[in-house]
Amino acid sequence: MESRRFLFSVLLLVGLRCGAASRSVIRLYDDQSQKFLRLDDNLYCESWRFSVETNDAGKWESIPSRCQRFVEDYMTGGRYLSDSTIVADYALEFARGVQIAADGRDAWVFDIDETLLSNLPYYESHGFGSEEFNENLFDAWVDSAEAPALLASAALYKELQQQGFKIFLLTGRSEHQRNATETNLKMAGFSNWEKLILRSSADQGKHAVIYKSEKRLELTKEGYRLHGNSGDQWSDLWGFAEAERSFKLPNPMYYIA
Amino acid sequence: MESRRFLFSVLLLVGLRCGAASRSVIRLYDDQSQKFLRLDDNLYCESWRFSVETNDAGKWESIPSRCQRFVEDYMTGGRYLSDSTIVADYALEFARGVQIAADGRDAWVFDIDETLLSNLPYYESHGFGSEEFNENLFDAWVDSAEAPALLASAALYKELQQQGFKIFLLTGRSEHQRNATETNLKMAGFSNWEKLILRSSADQGKHAVIYKSEKRLELTKEGYRLHGNSGDQWSDLWGFAEAERSFKLPNPMYYIA
Repeated sequence: MESRRFLFSVLLLVGLRCGAASRSVIRLYDDQSQKFLRLDDNLYCESWRFSVETNDAGKWESIPSRCQRFVEDYMTGGRYLSDSTIVADYALEFARGVQIAADGRDAWVFDIDETLLSNLPYYESHGFGSEEFNENLFDAWVDSAEAPALLASAALYKELQQQGFKIFLLTGRSEHQRNATETNLKMAGFSNWEKLILRSSADQGKHAVIYKSEKRLELTKEGYRLHGNSGDQWSDLWGFAEAERSFKLPNPMYYIA
Repeated sequence: MESRRFLFSVLLLVGLRCGAASRSVIRLYDDQSQKFLRLDDNLYCESWRFSVETNDAGKWESIPSRCQRFVEDYMTGGRYLSDSTIVADYALEFARGVQIAADGRDAWVFDIDETLLSNLPYYESHGFGSEEFNENLFDAWVDSAEAPALLASAALYKELQQQGFKIFLLTGRSEHQRNATETNLKMAGFSNWEKLILRSSADQGKHAVIYKSEKRLELTKEGYRLHGNSGDQWSDLWGFAEAERSFKLPNPMYYIA
């Protein structure tokens, strides 16, 4: 019985297509009808999301147009909240196993955008990542300091502080956005971080993964033990001077190299 | 209008619970009803899958019992095939951009289980990862050499060979399983790999991430350029001597450290 079900799925063969009109080169092929199968939008967009969240997709510019509605539903329909809550739950489970020393050097690193603060209200007005990124408009949104807290991270943040972790905020935002960022963080309920690290003029133009690794390395040289690191981009987490555990939050709206 | 939808979702507050009866410590809390929300199984299992595929969950032993049906549906209902096909597609897109040199040193590394060969027929008979792993039963399955090809990877494998990549197979299987593994690979349509690397007696007991990194390092010392690496476990991909690009295939059934 079990093998029969499996044999059925083998009727879907993978075919190769060499036309240059579409990006896709490996597609599902139905051996019986001898036709390539077009995945329905939901199945395709689920798989696209798997590929971007695991970094299999590599660098990407904007969400596929056929996935705009999918991303909107994901972000606003409860899945985003559920995913980020379970990530925070795993982070806290790990954190509770950390022995906090008396020297005040046990640390946790948080990214800001889509990690502590949610820019969902901005992206709701700009196609959920399907529109080309407009730096001027986004900077104006940052200056407004209206981004709400990402709720799961806010709970994690408070619990980590109670346990004695020093909190470092490491963001790709620029030094000139310090005031707006501090105002926004406080309005959203965050306080008592150890240090807020923004890009200085010397950091401009660096890839995020290099800039963030360099800053983490500085912290380790100051004697901090980086137990955990929470971020929505792999460039928040990978590189060198990585934390003992990294926690990748979901973000199907945009990619930062 | 947009902000109204957002305000509605903020009514779901994240609460902290200190009881030790359940593992979960950060959960969704409904401020209006003043009750913790129990995620329905599907929403929970989708989020659990996000956490295991991004490695946020860290080491895990078996799938949550409430997710057995979810994993079965995922593995047999088309999503697994769709996800792995799109991963292969991104891998091939990257591979086509690689300039193949005349020295025969452009290489791609493949894991075997749940990467080239699918053990789904075995796991269909053993709870899709909800049963405790039984090494004797699984070894007997390996010896039977009946695992079918993972279709998306088979298409990628052939295309990479045509482009001139040297293929290295790097598996956690042991040297005494070489004959069964070679037989199975050939029966499933794979051929002409450069080298099949299995665990020698000296490799027994090493964490997969160390064993695999060491073997990749040996390849780079032999002059191979590791452009791509395909595997279903992060321990296939991370460590040192990492490939230029890593491609994480889905596997919600089991975890290898």
